Amino acid sequence: MQDDSVTTPSRRSGRQRNLNARATVAIAQRPWQQPRSRLAPVELLSTDELESIHLTSLRILEEIGIDFLSPAAREIVREAGGTTLPGSERVHLDRRLVESLVAKAPPSFQLHARNPERSLQVGGGSTFFCCVASPPNCQGLGQPRHPGTLPDFRTFLKLGQQLNIIHAFGGYPVEPSEINARVRHLLCLADLASMTDKVFHAYALGRERILDAIEIVKIVRGIDEERLAREPSFFTVVNSSSPLRYDKPMLEGAIEMARRNQPVAYTPFTLAGAMAPITLAGALAQQNAEVLAGVAFSQMVRPGTPCLYGAYTSNVDMRSGAPAFGTPEYAKTTLISGQLARRYRLPYRASNGNAANGPDAQSVYESAMSLWSAMLAQSNLMMHAAGWLEGGLCSSFEKLVIDAEMLQMIAAFMEPTPITEETLALDAIRDVGPGGHFFGTPHTLARYESAFYVPMLSDWSNYGRWQEGGAQDAFTRAGEIARRLIDSYEPPPLAPDRADALADFVARRTAEGGAPAD
Amino acid sequence: MQDDSVTTPSRRSGRQRNLNARATVAIAQRPWQQPRSRLAPVELLSTDELESIHLTSLRILEEIGIDFLSPAAREIVREAGGTTLPGSERVHLDRRLVESLVAKAPPSFQLHARNPERSLQVGGGSTFFCCVASPPNCQGLGQPRHPGTLPDFRTFLKLGQQLNIIHAFGGYPVEPSEINARVRHLLCLADLASMTDKVFHAYALGRERILDAIEIVKIVRGIDEERLAREPSFFTVVNSSSPLRYDKPMLEGAIEMARRNQPVAYTPFTLAGAMAPITLAGALAQQNAEVLAGVAFSQMVRPGTPCLYGAYTSNVDMRSGAPAFGTPEYAKTTLISGQLARRYRLPYRASNGNAANGPDAQSVYESAMSLWSAMLAQSNLMMHAAGWLEGGLCSSFEKLVIDAEMLQMIAAFMEPTPITEETLALDAIRDVGPGGHFFGTPHTLARYESAFYVPMLSDWSNYGRWQEGGAQDAFTRAGEIARRLIDSYEPPPLAPDRADALADFVARRTAEGGAPAD
Repeated sequence: MQDDSVTTPSRRSGRQRNLNARATVAIAQRPWQQPRSRLAPVELLSTDELESIHLTSLRILEEIGIDFLSPAAREIVREAGGTTLPGSERVHLDRRLVESLVAKAPPSFQLHARNPERSLQVGGGSTFFCCVASPPNCQGLGQPRHPGTLPDFRTFLKLGQQLNIIHAFGGYPVEPSEINARVRHLLCLADLASMTDKVFHAYALGRERILDAIEIVKIVRGIDEERLAREPSFFTVVNSSSPLRYDKPMLEGAIEMARRNQPVAYTPFTLAGAMAPITLAGALAQQNAEVLAGVAFSQMVRPGTPCLYGAYTSNVDMRSGAPAFGTPEYAKTTLISGQLARRYRLPYRASNGNAANGPDAQSVYESAMSLWSAMLAQSNLMMHAAGWLEGGLCSSFEKLVIDAEMLQMIAAFMEPTPITEETLALDAIRDVGPGGHFFGTPHTLARYESAFYVPMLSDWSNYGRWQEGGAQDAFTRAGEIARRLIDSYEPPPLAPDRADALADFVARRTAEGGAPAD
Repeated sequence: MQDDSVTTPSRRSGRQRNLNARATVAIAQRPWQQPRSRLAPVELLSTDELESIHLTSLRILEEIGIDFLSPAAREIVREAGGTTLPGSERVHLDRRLVESLVAKAPPSFQLHARNPERSLQVGGGSTFFCCVASPPNCQGLGQPRHPGTLPDFRTFLKLGQQLNIIHAFGGYPVEPSEINARVRHLLCLADLASMTDKVFHAYALGRERILDAIEIVKIVRGIDEERLAREPSFFTVVNSSSPLRYDKPMLEGAIEMARRNQPVAYTPFTLAGAMAPITLAGALAQQNAEVLAGVAFSQMVRPGTPCLYGAYTSNVDMRSGAPAFGTPEYAKTTLISGQLARRYRLPYRASNGNAANGPDAQSVYESAMSLWSAMLAQSNLMMHAAGWLEGGLCSSFEKLVIDAEMLQMIAAFMEPTPITEETLALDAIRDVGPGGHFFGTPHTLARYESAFYVPMLSDWSNYGRWQEGGAQDAFTRAGEIARRLIDSYEPPPLAPDRADALADFVARRTAEGGAPAD
């Protein structure tokens, strides 16, 4: 044997103790838990460099301004001391106004799920992972890529509910395209609120959809308006329409969220070279201006309302204009955005992006860039943490399981490494001695069940056994795991009176015609 | 469009400027360059915790001792002040002796390739990536897994030579199993020295093989023994046979390396739960003891001889005994080992490991854990950086290209992010204004060719174009890239007199019967 050839006692003897066939083995999941960062945050930029991004953003808001496409929103800005011009959608925000408003947002808060065990800490060193959201298409479990349907949507909810490492739903895992847009939010939110017991997101597509979401969350949590305002219970993402523009439906959704103290993650989608400058510094300055304008706006509506600093600055392929995710540039902006969020003491939202057309090696290494940089940036909310493909145009059941394994690995990596006299094991090393081995020693036997991360998806059997077992690659195994989890899904309990009230509400609002189409 | 749906100007218009078919596009490679870390190293343990690992290792060497299976090596230890016992292979090393010897190893040094442009800095913030080494099997380019042959070996050399991100060869990319072990090193080292112009490694499998490597490197560099001793020109890895044992061939190879000032990377293969304690703290204490014993030994032979701190502590699957790599535990030990290497001011060797049986998603996410942790640990030498599968039992052409893309991405991520008035782009943002776009602006046009990392393997085209182009996944594309690189390989120039001398030397040593079999 040479250099690093791999030989373990079991390989030497040919002994294998993997007695159970895979199909009967329980799916290994970490228990429900929010990971907490124990590493110092990684600082890609110096304090001075970060400050120059900050100062550039303030100049953007002061000198260039930003378009708010809602008259109601502009009225709020004007009353709060911003500058508006008659006949113009442009608003200008003075730096002192921006800084004093942003400082009012809380550094951390709780998100209350209908099942209190699924409530989440947002900020303060903890993180949580959301299921993929919003693709129009999906693929997997034997089905080729196709426009999403309500059955697909529901299958994703089952899978997301079953995976402990999926802490929340960041939107619809796939758009059920056959459902009329006027009532889609009613059906989907009712499913999210009843088929899962985790925190969910509602789209800020106009005032009415947010008001419907508020009613639904009140029904399934059994709370009144006053308690809702004390207990943030769902969240939304507000994307700017970069560069420097917030659309009417999103602003008006944000107003209703803020009025009730419900959190908004302001997330510019600033692709460097397209909707933002081609230089990362410039794209980040613009991103930062757009986030600050959003957070300041929420504080104008209701000081102290929870907001997140959302980042989504990536780059395009300059040869084709195609967007790219999980690139080296994306990893950098993810880290620098974390620095900016910490500067403003705001919880930080990042994402697990990739631009691959299928759940192949590219989708995995781009996701790995996204996940590692988000973890090192101490993100508090990871959107699209599992199941995303094609830069968000397709969701995948198999990729969801692959990502869930990666998330579990990241969570296990974030666990502490105890260094004690016991773990330093001098006595065990002495007892075994040079040339011995540690299998079967008391020190090993006392710990072997919980010593290491147990994978859900990874197959560590040797080539021969893997061949005998059907030589399934990770994609095939991921599909099998997804099927088993979906098949064993059971709806989380919901009190019958709340279930009835929910059904009544959806029926009434549907009969009324739902919400205006986009 | 909702939330994070991806729309760029080009998608909106349907315009695409990717005019060239893939087959005629040049393969995008970063230029030859050693990446340099610009991040502060990540500290997983506190200084106190690190110190307790250090102190435990010193007690191991003092109280338990370590077996040196070479009488010549034990004699060197005895003369240097270590304790040996008649009739025993055990040596005991006093902590002051260990610490004073380890302090003599240089913190950084150069490795001289026969092509001076391929010479490498070892230590001092820079890193380099080695091709996969030592698997008995290989797969890919249409061939199923099979025992390696000399033609396979040579094909890997061509591919490794062609990839700029492969800085060196860490051993034989696959073992040519049909070549008799007595002469295998002669053929393989002659190929490494002539078919590539990069730094290479020679196996420390006994005194004779190292002496042959020394002659070969002198011939192709055209240098004498004295200059070789001034200019480290190749390297070896010495693995302990854990727990706490160094075998005879490796120790005797290490002696010849040290005598000529050639570097050794001491790398215990300490699988927690098998050859080392099941606790990471204990496995690291044992690893550290074994590394320190090795480095101290080299310094006994020749004070100041270059050594690397090598780490390879992973865990086994406690259900089957199978070794695992790229696990959360592996990422932790990689980071902590980097802390230990910095504590001793030694260059640090890490690896890109995975335990997958094919180049699938598992192989990629396990590699990503390995690569990110090695980068954050500021490793100076990455062994097996590209092409490894099955915990080192198989090499793969496709995985080599997939890993090369990941390495290029890591290298691009390590580039600085300039924050200047120009890059902050306030004027460009002002010119474009709210609602505009940045395609085609002077600020963009001046930078679009070099603004972003250009991938070698990733395909960012949208789903429709990807389908039209044959819907190739990353594995298929990687095989295509490998084939094109291999087909366009040209041997790097070697002066005819040196080529002749090399052929003569190999012929003579082969006629003499080569080196003793293992």
